[in-house]
Amino acid sequence: MKALVFHGPGQKALEDRPEPTIAKPTDAIVRITKTTICGTDLHILKGDVPKVRPGTTLGHEGVGVIEAVGNAVSNFMIGDLVLISCISSCGKCEFCRRQMYSHCTTGGWLLGHLIDGTQAEKVLIPHADSSLYHMPAGADEEALVMLSDILPTGFECGILNGKLKPGQSVAIVGAGPVGLAALMTAQFYAPAQIIVIDLDDNRLEVAKQFGATDLVNSAAGNSVEQVMALTINHGVDVSIEAVGLPATFAICESIVGAGGTIANIGVHGTKVDLHLERLWSHNITLTTGLVNTYTTPMLLSTVASKRLEPKKLVTHRFTLDRIMDAYTTFSDAVHSRALKVVISNEGA
Amino acid sequence: MKALVFHGPGQKALEDRPEPTIAKPTDAIVRITKTTICGTDLHILKGDVPKVRPGTTLGHEGVGVIEAVGNAVSNFMIGDLVLISCISSCGKCEFCRRQMYSHCTTGGWLLGHLIDGTQAEKVLIPHADSSLYHMPAGADEEALVMLSDILPTGFECGILNGKLKPGQSVAIVGAGPVGLAALMTAQFYAPAQIIVIDLDDNRLEVAKQFGATDLVNSAAGNSVEQVMALTINHGVDVSIEAVGLPATFAICESIVGAGGTIANIGVHGTKVDLHLERLWSHNITLTTGLVNTYTTPMLLSTVASKRLEPKKLVTHRFTLDRIMDAYTTFSDAVHSRALKVVISNEGA
Amino acid sequence: MKALVFHGPGQKALEDRPEPTIAKPTDAIVRITKTTICGTDLHILKGDVPKVRPGTTLGHEGVGVIEAVGNAVSNFMIGDLVLISCISSCGKCEFCRRQMYSHCTTGGWLLGHLIDGTQAEKVLIPHADSSLYHMPAGADEEALVMLSDILPTGFECGILNGKLKPGQSVAIVGAGPVGLAALMTAQFYAPAQIIVIDLDDNRLEVAKQFGATDLVNSAAGNSVEQVMALTINHGVDVSIEAVGLPATFAICESIVGAGGTIANIGVHGTKVDLHLERLWSHNITLTTGLVNTYTTPMLLSTVASKRLEPKKLVTHRFTLDRIMDAYTTFSDAVHSRALKVVISNEGA
Amino acid sequence: MKALVFHGPGQKALEDRPEPTIAKPTDAIVRITKTTICGTDLHILKGDVPKVRPGTTLGHEGVGVIEAVGNAVSNFMIGDLVLISCISSCGKCEFCRRQMYSHCTTGGWLLGHLIDGTQAEKVLIPHADSSLYHMPAGADEEALVMLSDILPTGFECGILNGKLKPGQSVAIVGAGPVGLAALMTAQFYAPAQIIVIDLDDNRLEVAKQFGATDLVNSAAGNSVEQVMALTINHGVDVSIEAVGLPATFAICESIVGAGGTIANIGVHGTKVDLHLERLWSHNITLTTGLVNTYTTPMLLSTVASKRLEPKKLVTHRFTLDRIMDAYTTFSDAVHSRALKVVISNEGA
Repeated sequence: MKALVFHGPGQKALEDRPEPTIAKPTDAIVRITKTTICGTDLHILKGDVPKVRPGTTLGHEGVGVIEAVGNAVSNFMIGDLVLISCISSCGKCEFCRRQMYSHCTTGGWLLGHLIDGTQAEKVLIPHADSSLYHMPAGADEEALVMLSDILPTGFECGILNGKLKPGQSVAIVGAGPVGLAALMTAQFYAPAQIIVIDLDDNRLEVAKQFGATDLVNSAAGNSVEQVMALTINHGVDVSIEAVGLPATFAICESIVGAGGTIANIGVHGTKVDLHLERLWSHNITLTTGLVNTYTTPMLLSTVASKRLEPKKLVTHRFTLDRIMDAYTTFSDAVHSRALKVVISNEGA
Repeated sequence: MKALVFHGPGQKALEDRPEPTIAKPTDAIVRITKTTICGTDLHILKGDVPKVRPGTTLGHEGVGVIEAVGNAVSNFMIGDLVLISCISSCGKCEFCRRQMYSHCTTGGWLLGHLIDGTQAEKVLIPHADSSLYHMPAGADEEALVMLSDILPTGFECGILNGKLKPGQSVAIVGAGPVGLAALMTAQFYAPAQIIVIDLDDNRLEVAKQFGATDLVNSAAGNSVEQVMALTINHGVDVSIEAVGLPATFAICESIVGAGGTIANIGVHGTKVDLHLERLWSHNITLTTGLVNTYTTPMLLSTVASKRLEPKKLVTHRFTLDRIMDAYTTFSDAVHSRALKVVISNEGA
Repeated sequence: MKALVFHGPGQKALEDRPEPTIAKPTDAIVRITKTTICGTDLHILKGDVPKVRPGTTLGHEGVGVIEAVGNAVSNFMIGDLVLISCISSCGKCEFCRRQMYSHCTTGGWLLGHLIDGTQAEKVLIPHADSSLYHMPAGADEEALVMLSDILPTGFECGILNGKLKPGQSVAIVGAGPVGLAALMTAQFYAPAQIIVIDLDDNRLEVAKQFGATDLVNSAAGNSVEQVMALTINHGVDVSIEAVGLPATFAICESIVGAGGTIANIGVHGTKVDLHLERLWSHNITLTTGLVNTYTTPMLLSTVASKRLEPKKLVTHRFTLDRIMDAYTTFSDAVHSRALKVVISNEGA
Repeated sequence: MKALVFHGPGQKALEDRPEPTIAKPTDAIVRITKTTICGTDLHILKGDVPKVRPGTTLGHEGVGVIEAVGNAVSNFMIGDLVLISCISSCGKCEFCRRQMYSHCTTGGWLLGHLIDGTQAEKVLIPHADSSLYHMPAGADEEALVMLSDILPTGFECGILNGKLKPGQSVAIVGAGPVGLAALMTAQFYAPAQIIVIDLDDNRLEVAKQFGATDLVNSAAGNSVEQVMALTINHGVDVSIEAVGLPATFAICESIVGAGGTIANIGVHGTKVDLHLERLWSHNITLTTGLVNTYTTPMLLSTVASKRLEPKKLVTHRFTLDRIMDAYTTFSDAVHSRALKVVISNEGA
């Protein structure tokens, strides 16, 4: 079968690989119909995620059809249409019992990281019963592939960790796909003010269309002053970091109001400064976390009830044989204006 | 009347000052019977708290007797025995309604900071109705003076912000009075393991007597390894910073387990490093905050029911005319083995 | 001044009464510009609320202008435009500190109950600083008068007590003004399904316009079966009682799903049956409560940001001299199709 | 093998039954070393639980040794010492993901109810990986058998549902084994006052030894007055029903204070009166629920750290061949003063 294989920093290829087969009674094999590329895949290709060994198929998002199941899989049958979670979870270890699936002792982020991933014709899913979800009847596949990772990431690590409440103010630093996912799901809680901060006017314009009430272009270096003016010097109740750099974290620290929360989503490669000399008395909370995908059933429900329309994140479409082009388009988002690219397997 | 007055960094004097008088209808005048010295008073004398103007009477802890009340004070009458909260709160601003009394728009930490404090014969208490508490009948004054600041500080900023739950593990970095207050109140939640970390074996021995299950002397520089060994490499559920230095904060960051909380109590004078390159995916929470004293009624209840015995923090006793000696003793805790010193006014 | 005075069951009159004057330093006098009638006022007139003494001016909702303040009132000045809360709160007793303002030891529901109320030209407001709110600049008075009671009641006792979460299902039994207030504020939490149950097709049609996703007319006696069919036999996550009768409570008990909540808003005059022989193992929660109005600042914020449009509850308008007609219209809602009637004082 | 088999109301026998064998890949077979009898077993024998078919082996509590496992069981191996949970859970259905294991779509309370139970030499455990727990090294088997059901029941349905907090007051109505389990685990939260109410002075005396601060004998019919006097007419913060009768529920309703919680544990056979005409404005919460056993790992931790000593509930010991005598002793608790009886299999 065809698979997009990582061969060390800067190197990837679409090549033939053997098809996966059931190894454990809790495994399933899924034939991928649609997948996508994540910012994290670009990090892997830059060499930022050293645990990924050369030879690994990339990708941790996708929807598809069950082709085979182990004898202990009870929730799924051959032919079922499924959403693949980026997080595999056994459902029975200490962490899974606390819904901290990303820390599952035999799961967590495995796909396209420690085992072969979804940018291929087929993929093996460990712990299938608790790592796959039935696609609702009539669901749009492109909408659902957004639920593998970025929607639960923006919602859980941004909005829920941030404890956003109706009538509050929230600032989202970074209007990339995950920041936009936070923006979309922020609206589940009817905030009075949603401020989006980014360097790119195009992305800010998208944020406006997606529901931002105020836009701040941080290129001029005065984003903190702008946010404080927008909040009558109170700062925001929830400050969401969706970039992963010391400079964007610094903005989050400066704009959070007394009693507020900084919710970090960004993947950081280096330490940041925490200004406890100012924050120690400020009654703030800071949260971090890899997505656990415990909200996937709820997100499926809100997609079904049309409260959430994640399909509008999809800007480009490719077939699997053109996945190298898909990477080029996604990597050059400033010019391509790509948000999420969908890679379809039917045409492969 | 006699008062201990701050005269700039390094300078203080016990001197005669005019008695306070009611200025607003919500004020009360309290004749102090017992007060104490806080680590924060030492910070002020070092010049670390520039908002304190020379000429200010120090002190934000104490118990006493009501001498006068404004015409809008309804909870207290002349002659009532009262506990003074270190935080003054109006009870009606946006922050007070959220129980964030330390951010009260016309209150917060005023005593011995922005207005004259309690290390004197008498003190004016603004917003008396919501800043004073009736002393329970038969209560021990020395025990209650510990409830002005350090007990609610250790409990609210350490244990409650840390969300400690029965059966969990907690580490307290720093066994000074506030760390010991956290240790005492941690036991309200029946943790399975309470690890106390300090450089001073004497203080660790006190921690043992106060209920610590494990002691770690950090002088050898391997406290992180010791804690990880004590927790079978899981790290602790709650990691409490009760010192206020980058090095002690670094310990807290290194020992918190996945899903755990770092609760900062320490007063920091400089920024610290936050290792988001490791913590971003660790699902941890960090909290900061000045005490709000919203637990004072509950702490009074637990003192009354003997579940809490704060009097054992008192190691030395002085009369007000010897308060300069009290400062010397408290400042030199390594040699004096002082925890809290009580200053009594009856003998003044 | 003119006032609508209760003279015992079935008897009321618009008559001349002396103007109120400041009695305590925390009082304020408000000149009423707009008020309204509550279902509770009709209960009083039926004799269901025996604590109301004949001679009491009715009404606990309204907006107006400050005419006088006691010397301890610091948040308001003469001439300020204010929203009156139906609950008076001292801000400093044990209950107020826990935001249980309806249990304030010297406050709670006083207006038009234990003291003269708002259906008059002027009203005395005790504990003015924590019982009044500034009207936002440019606010619509008719919208704000809905915030005195029914909006916080529907939101706090229905939605917040019910712990409604995004993606969940909620059923509201009773589409009167308070049920509709619950319906409007339910949408702060993006539920997937909002079922409204009532006997009156007109009110159900209004509910549809206000955002209900499913309507159930309970006249046929099979409302439970209808709700179970709508929820694929799971029952609802949140079941809100907004009527106050044994029969409507029984519906709420029958339609709540495992793990769900019954949130009671209705004023009950008699006991109800609780079927613990079925519910004991059902993991459900039941809540009761008089509104505390702790969400008033947040509701003011959502009105200002246009997320909430309470003005659409207003169906009829009268001047104070025609308040007897307003009562007639409001009492006969089946024929008049009245939801809320606004009584204006400018024309008096 | 020997098993205690239910043969319809009033009829049971110790008889020979075939040994269980692995049927599904997620099953395990456990050789029972110790089991016990629950009040629920007596209910079954009275005919109160019609779902139990004649021919079913009774019992849902026990510890033992793994004898066989299905090929999908990964947490346990032959020879492991295990604690059996009274609740079987798949770990992957909608309810298990929310930790509502008692509602597991293929699990819940199965043992000794819908399938053969633990009062036998061996038992088949479905969903073994998430329904069994490793016994800590050196653990006391008698202590642990109390963790199969009554300790998590008292803790989850009484203390945690009741949201007991340090410094609060709690009343427990019923000092049987489950009421005593609530009493023991209440002390994890350092309440200021623990009132125990029962008809039996012997059980009240046991409650005193187990940590009750106040005892109320309800035989005189004035238990409500006694509790109100003990709480200075405030009522209790948490009122726990641990009997299951209308009369005991009525006590709980009458003694709960404003803002408090009634936590129902009792198994009820009939409806009760809920006095909403009084409680509607009282801001109270009522909870129900079958135990979910989500706290079992935490309880194992507190037993290991000696904070919990459930062994003291064991008053009588029998071997399996004398289980009929064990039932007689347990059924006649008033005279035998039995709390929990342990049935050992080694001597069988």
